[in-house]
Amino acid sequence: MAGEHTGADGPVRMSSWHEECGVFGIYAPGQDVARLAYYGLFALQHRGQESAGIAVANGRHIAVHKGMGLVAEVFNRDNLRALHGDVAIGHVRYSTTGASSLVNAQPLVFRYLRGMVAIAHNGNLTNASELRRELGASGSIFQSSTDSEIIVNLIARHSQEPVEAALLHCQEELRGAYSLVVMTEEQLIGVRDPHGVRPLCLGRMDGAWILASESCALDTLGADFVRDLEPGEIVIIDSRGVRSLQGPRVAHRAHCIFEYVYFARPDSILDGETVNLVRRELGRNLAREYRVAADAVIPVPDSGIAAAAGYAEVAGLPFVEGLMKNRYVGRTFIQPTQEMRDLGVRLKLNPIKPILKDKRVIIIDDSLVRGTTSRRIVAMLRQAGVREVHLLVASPPVLHPCYYGIDTSARGELIAARYPLEDIRRHVDADSLHYLSLEGLFRSVQRGMEDFCAACFTGSYPIPIPSPEEATKYSLEG
Amino acid sequence: MAGEHTGADGPVRMSSWHEECGVFGIYAPGQDVARLAYYGLFALQHRGQESAGIAVANGRHIAVHKGMGLVAEVFNRDNLRALHGDVAIGHVRYSTTGASSLVNAQPLVFRYLRGMVAIAHNGNLTNASELRRELGASGSIFQSSTDSEIIVNLIARHSQEPVEAALLHCQEELRGAYSLVVMTEEQLIGVRDPHGVRPLCLGRMDGAWILASESCALDTLGADFVRDLEPGEIVIIDSRGVRSLQGPRVAHRAHCIFEYVYFARPDSILDGETVNLVRRELGRNLAREYRVAADAVIPVPDSGIAAAAGYAEVAGLPFVEGLMKNRYVGRTFIQPTQEMRDLGVRLKLNPIKPILKDKRVIIIDDSLVRGTTSRRIVAMLRQAGVREVHLLVASPPVLHPCYYGIDTSARGELIAARYPLEDIRRHVDADSLHYLSLEGLFRSVQRGMEDFCAACFTGSYPIPIPSPEEATKYSLEG
Amino acid sequence: MAGEHTGADGPVRMSSWHEECGVFGIYAPGQDVARLAYYGLFALQHRGQESAGIAVANGRHIAVHKGMGLVAEVFNRDNLRALHGDVAIGHVRYSTTGASSLVNAQPLVFRYLRGMVAIAHNGNLTNASELRRELGASGSIFQSSTDSEIIVNLIARHSQEPVEAALLHCQEELRGAYSLVVMTEEQLIGVRDPHGVRPLCLGRMDGAWILASESCALDTLGADFVRDLEPGEIVIIDSRGVRSLQGPRVAHRAHCIFEYVYFARPDSILDGETVNLVRRELGRNLAREYRVAADAVIPVPDSGIAAAAGYAEVAGLPFVEGLMKNRYVGRTFIQPTQEMRDLGVRLKLNPIKPILKDKRVIIIDDSLVRGTTSRRIVAMLRQAGVREVHLLVASPPVLHPCYYGIDTSARGELIAARYPLEDIRRHVDADSLHYLSLEGLFRSVQRGMEDFCAACFTGSYPIPIPSPEEATKYSLEG
Amino acid sequence: MAGEHTGADGPVRMSSWHEECGVFGIYAPGQDVARLAYYGLFALQHRGQESAGIAVANGRHIAVHKGMGLVAEVFNRDNLRALHGDVAIGHVRYSTTGASSLVNAQPLVFRYLRGMVAIAHNGNLTNASELRRELGASGSIFQSSTDSEIIVNLIARHSQEPVEAALLHCQEELRGAYSLVVMTEEQLIGVRDPHGVRPLCLGRMDGAWILASESCALDTLGADFVRDLEPGEIVIIDSRGVRSLQGPRVAHRAHCIFEYVYFARPDSILDGETVNLVRRELGRNLAREYRVAADAVIPVPDSGIAAAAGYAEVAGLPFVEGLMKNRYVGRTFIQPTQEMRDLGVRLKLNPIKPILKDKRVIIIDDSLVRGTTSRRIVAMLRQAGVREVHLLVASPPVLHPCYYGIDTSARGELIAARYPLEDIRRHVDADSLHYLSLEGLFRSVQRGMEDFCAACFTGSYPIPIPSPEEATKYSLEG
Repeated sequence: MAGEHTGADGPVRMSSWHEECGVFGIYAPGQDVARLAYYGLFALQHRGQESAGIAVANGRHIAVHKGMGLVAEVFNRDNLRALHGDVAIGHVRYSTTGASSLVNAQPLVFRYLRGMVAIAHNGNLTNASELRRELGASGSIFQSSTDSEIIVNLIARHSQEPVEAALLHCQEELRGAYSLVVMTEEQLIGVRDPHGVRPLCLGRMDGAWILASESCALDTLGADFVRDLEPGEIVIIDSRGVRSLQGPRVAHRAHCIFEYVYFARPDSILDGETVNLVRRELGRNLAREYRVAADAVIPVPDSGIAAAAGYAEVAGLPFVEGLMKNRYVGRTFIQPTQEMRDLGVRLKLNPIKPILKDKRVIIIDDSLVRGTTSRRIVAMLRQAGVREVHLLVASPPVLHPCYYGIDTSARGELIAARYPLEDIRRHVDADSLHYLSLEGLFRSVQRGMEDFCAACFTGSYPIPIPSPEEATKYSLEG
Repeated sequence: MAGEHTGADGPVRMSSWHEECGVFGIYAPGQDVARLAYYGLFALQHRGQESAGIAVANGRHIAVHKGMGLVAEVFNRDNLRALHGDVAIGHVRYSTTGASSLVNAQPLVFRYLRGMVAIAHNGNLTNASELRRELGASGSIFQSSTDSEIIVNLIARHSQEPVEAALLHCQEELRGAYSLVVMTEEQLIGVRDPHGVRPLCLGRMDGAWILASESCALDTLGADFVRDLEPGEIVIIDSRGVRSLQGPRVAHRAHCIFEYVYFARPDSILDGETVNLVRRELGRNLAREYRVAADAVIPVPDSGIAAAAGYAEVAGLPFVEGLMKNRYVGRTFIQPTQEMRDLGVRLKLNPIKPILKDKRVIIIDDSLVRGTTSRRIVAMLRQAGVREVHLLVASPPVLHPCYYGIDTSARGELIAARYPLEDIRRHVDADSLHYLSLEGLFRSVQRGMEDFCAACFTGSYPIPIPSPEEATKYSLEG
Repeated sequence: MAGEHTGADGPVRMSSWHEECGVFGIYAPGQDVARLAYYGLFALQHRGQESAGIAVANGRHIAVHKGMGLVAEVFNRDNLRALHGDVAIGHVRYSTTGASSLVNAQPLVFRYLRGMVAIAHNGNLTNASELRRELGASGSIFQSSTDSEIIVNLIARHSQEPVEAALLHCQEELRGAYSLVVMTEEQLIGVRDPHGVRPLCLGRMDGAWILASESCALDTLGADFVRDLEPGEIVIIDSRGVRSLQGPRVAHRAHCIFEYVYFARPDSILDGETVNLVRRELGRNLAREYRVAADAVIPVPDSGIAAAAGYAEVAGLPFVEGLMKNRYVGRTFIQPTQEMRDLGVRLKLNPIKPILKDKRVIIIDDSLVRGTTSRRIVAMLRQAGVREVHLLVASPPVLHPCYYGIDTSARGELIAARYPLEDIRRHVDADSLHYLSLEGLFRSVQRGMEDFCAACFTGSYPIPIPSPEEATKYSLEG
Repeated sequence: MAGEHTGADGPVRMSSWHEECGVFGIYAPGQDVARLAYYGLFALQHRGQESAGIAVANGRHIAVHKGMGLVAEVFNRDNLRALHGDVAIGHVRYSTTGASSLVNAQPLVFRYLRGMVAIAHNGNLTNASELRRELGASGSIFQSSTDSEIIVNLIARHSQEPVEAALLHCQEELRGAYSLVVMTEEQLIGVRDPHGVRPLCLGRMDGAWILASESCALDTLGADFVRDLEPGEIVIIDSRGVRSLQGPRVAHRAHCIFEYVYFARPDSILDGETVNLVRRELGRNLAREYRVAADAVIPVPDSGIAAAAGYAEVAGLPFVEGLMKNRYVGRTFIQPTQEMRDLGVRLKLNPIKPILKDKRVIIIDDSLVRGTTSRRIVAMLRQAGVREVHLLVASPPVLHPCYYGIDTSARGELIAARYPLEDIRRHVDADSLHYLSLEGLFRSVQRGMEDFCAACFTGSYPIPIPSPEEATKYSLEG
């Protein structure tokens, strides 16, 4: 998969999978909350590069700045300085082409009967169409295609109650995956869905409380990790301190396993599991399940590095950087024409020929979705003169689409859902192809498998999914 | 007033009065409606320089591009090209500092139960706070501080009816001044309030129907003027042609007289009156009412030119360009520091000394609101060595604030409302100061005075105005 | 001509004539010289809108910032703030398409044997090719196509002498028109060519000395006009005060008459003549020479206004603004397609129909070069329903190209050089066409005609002009 | 060193060492040479991120576009499309703060007696001051502070000869390190200095010849590597094909060893040595020289990865990614305030605590210059709870500054030049500190040590270096 998606490790855009968003919130009266949110979002940049936004509350009013692009592109000294207050929330977003526009950038700021509110959302509602239809029938209007605007309208429908009570009501009406940071003129609120699909944690530093999608944002600020939010939990932070409400929660958690396999930053600890350790363990278990005689273990950079190092360690083979990645590909980069590609222009990955020539190599990738990149990498290695190339995937075959906030392609594009292993091997032109088993996957985490959502591998969806018609019917992109 | 406001004639920003907006709509299947809307808005640029936007409908969807700045700054070939369809509406906006941000830029595009709608609004609702409160109480949320968002929510509350019927209902609920262009996925609709305060006209060109705030937009496109919309009229343009609904209308029209005095472009014809001819007539009537021995008649550029030419003609005095205006002051211009101003840095107007030295001059301005600029101009002329300076104002004293879409300062800043004539003369340091009479004003237009709103001069408001508390209570700027 | 050139009065780009540049210099230890230069250049913006630049010397070093576009576009608070020192020079430039690029923007800053020097130039050398060839033969290199770089190389060839002595030598070698501001690490120097073709004046304000192309830049800063530089004069300003060297000067001055007719700002006083008064007098003399029965005198805005007012005064006819100019056309404006033009899209000028219909009108323009615009204006007026249109030109026919810094089209494009009057009248489709006589032109200025260069009207060139081959042979544009 | 310099692997800016530039040239009549140069420079981006430029020759003329920033920031579709021709050269530049401005961006384009020439330079002249003085004495002027402008002036002094002959003469006058790509209106020329300090290679693809600083640029374009240029060689490419002149060359080559240790991209092959293999071998030799009991080998990303993998392989220890690098830090990123840093804001590197806690770790860095970063990394690891931290450096101590194009700090800042090993160990607070030996360094390359410049490690300079006064006396930065 590597080389064409946006993982934790680089600015390269993916084409098939991605995490929708990263969220961040900070309550720190007297501090430069906008600047701290800027650094927090910077640490979460791998979760979304399409747009970024920060909203700040000063007790009476909420101001916001949003824009298309990376955090460092959207914000400058002037617009950051204009955001002063005691509380801030922020958001980074990746979206599919259709809906990629400023109107969908978050946080969303609105005024309702009780005052101003800002909201930032990570995840995906599975009953969005239904809710939009119900709200529309009673006069709601929608200016974006985001789930956040649905949530905001639901909050407003409960405007007779304080916002935290309204959020408890919302939790009953919302279905799907959502980690929210919400801000009133003076409060910071975190909300996690009853299954705890998307991550959300609480941190603390001198005089400040922080909410973030991943713990790496806490590290970046020098803050201490306090705990992950419980599934269904609502945390309210204001001048009275921190308090917690427990909303509906289900018997079994359903933490997204793909966060560990690919999306989250290796240095984050999510719901008790260190991402880098999980990935390394995936590689080690892969080595326990499958060995092949080879001269070198080569990671697909960057997402395959930890697994490749784990594989190399267990297999006793040398770990070798055989593929070089150019890290300067950015948002405004002019892609080569097809003709240039045909002539061999190749920007992101370059095989290091003297390392590869006449060698038997094992290539380790974190996952395999459509097979396009794998095919390209194998071809590249063969051109560089390898003798044998064995493609090992540090996760099981992806057989089912995700409805909880990871934008997979339609089922038709999931190569493993359509073709038997041998056909895929032939397609990518590897000498051998091997996936990690489901058991190997679950052995790599410490928590029991019943606590994860692994629907993309197993097809067992913990939350009801929309019917196909629903999924496309009522969206602003229409 | 000249030199510090944004009139029809130049890019200089005013500080005290301004027209809120200009609106434009075009129905022209098969033509480049976005580009035509661009030129239409360009002709209306004097009605608002803070933001600009164009929305385009293609039968299934509405796309929009908006930005801060002039039409020529907001749009480029790329973003214009991305807007293709059969119908377009556009908007230019000037706003007070507080609310000046992209979120308030128009057109506003939203999806409600019946599909997508875009709206652009010129004018000001006097019951905005009341409507916002009512809508908020039943769950509406507001993402901007514009009146347009109120109208949009009202339309959505009538989503059981087609949009034109909903607009008829809205007309009953809305109070104040509004000229609207509304667009569904396939229709262009124009709406004028029951008093016809703000202008709105209909034009036609080969295969196209056009709605515009002023007829100069039709001239710019080479279109023919068809007629002004009637007060209370709703015009619907679609594949079936043009049809009209007559909503509520009042006994007497109330066309804003200040459009003629200052705001509209001299080459526009609004509700039957040619702006340049009205202004020239204001100057002629001023000459009939008041003469003073002088060597030259000097206009305050640009808004005083027509009146000065009319005065000079009747008085038999030479019309002389004695004040030179620098036209390059733009949005990003760095203003001089106070220290530099004190040392004499003077950017916008320069007196031509050899013309003025030892002369008795008459200065003609279109109106006098706060007196600050007049005082500065007189001082400038005295420094240039004039013997006598007579300040003649081609409209009556402004005594009352406007609630219908012209952002006057609070009543306290209207100098004529606070001080007697002689005090003002002394304040601006003129040898004499004379205003046109109310009679002179009404003699300058052809339509009878009962057909105009001249509340800023007379205090007689044709539409109920909000109480002071209402005016500030419920705005998103908080 | 109006409507398609860049005169003193507006941001519209001309297509056929233009002044090459405006120059500015300020010596003001302890003051914010960069900001003052910014305002000075802003006042000279009409002399060039293609690029702008400011260089600042602080006694040890010279820093510079240049860019494409208007002064207000090129500079912002950050880049202005970075320029601190005691002396500054600035430049605005208009150039023909071919050579329009940043590399040609001025001031030019260079280091030679004696230290750093910056230079800004207004005018045109007639022996540029010859000098470039000579310098090239002995090893000089050229990085731009500007005359300034030639001058700089000449200065460096005299590096054994102080810069003012070198400039005296340069004056002997340079042929053509040049007003220069030169800056060393601690001196400000002004140089005017022996004929005094291009203007350059000296001003003073508290603790500061100023050099500027036009006196309007002094007015803008609140500085006092001291005097124009003499032809051939070199003025040196430094910590020892102001001193003057008299270089070669010729028997007769040759001030460019076209500065008064069209280029300079109306409020400037150049070599003793107030531009606005000259223009008004051109109109008065035109009325004395030629009368026609008419209902109104209408200026082509903005450059025809003063002459039209003078004509109206003498002829006893009403001065009427019958053509409205849209002032928002800027650098980035997207021009209409030819198809749109054919359909009537018309952006810059709009006739006010009710003023024109069935009237006999006199149109006054400052000059007539190619006839294209005049033809368009007459057509526009006829469409608006005028009964008769009489085109009166407030200067004589332009028969000869300029080699001294005004980029006229080749001789072939000067319509008066190719066709008899009656053919031109028929071409522009006016009922009558009349030019001011040469005598009328000279009667409009106070200084005697022998003190002006009027070669464009008379063909009598005061300075030898290059042969046609020379003119194109050795330019960097190649 | 990692984390604060710009190596081959990431966009982070270094503070103490850097390579001055990367150069690229392509001769490909009929192809889109500007776009190909764009991709070529993109592959060389690690050699300079401050400015980028491309010049294109079309047989008659040379056009150029340059700007500050990354290749992807400087170029867009419009400015690339404007560059059409048959030959192109390009340049990326990193410069010290003082001289960082557009005027110093390359390629430099100039016209001299024989026509137009463009030039791009990588390296550093050691007799620049002397040459500038000599040229200045005979009238040369300098508009930049680049060595390239000196070379250009030298070429012009030999304008009686064709450019390749002039370059042969220049080689006799120039002293120092230089790899040049030169372009006339129809030729592409490569020049390497007599010692071959900086790399330059020749490649070929269908119908095209390419010159590039590193072979990775050839790989990116899908071109074949032909050979490295010989020291002192001049290669001329034009319609007659490729020919070669051999200029002066010295007995021993002096290829910069630091290119392999740190600067060049791991996938490049320079003068016969594959960078990644050299680095891995440095790590292996380090393991052969020095072992310490530890639980993990952790690279300082990214420049320490290859050496760490090599060390781990030989030492039989697990290779672990224990430090996570955020790759999104870009040019416009707003750095944290000192106060925020003190509070723990830490953007670039994050230790993965669960991996480090209570472990004995070996940290591998490519080199150690000032010690600042190493100290910070060790502190970070200690905070993360490591039991022991051993810092191993995969190159010898840097004891001497570089004068050949790598901008080292002054000698005073080279920590190894000032303090004994034990003091440095205490300063960086490591449990042990070990450098690779000089022998280990030379054993890691295949070519003999007499063919490298390792002056930074040995102090033995192959080319005379300037006296300290010379080094600062005559620069445009003054």
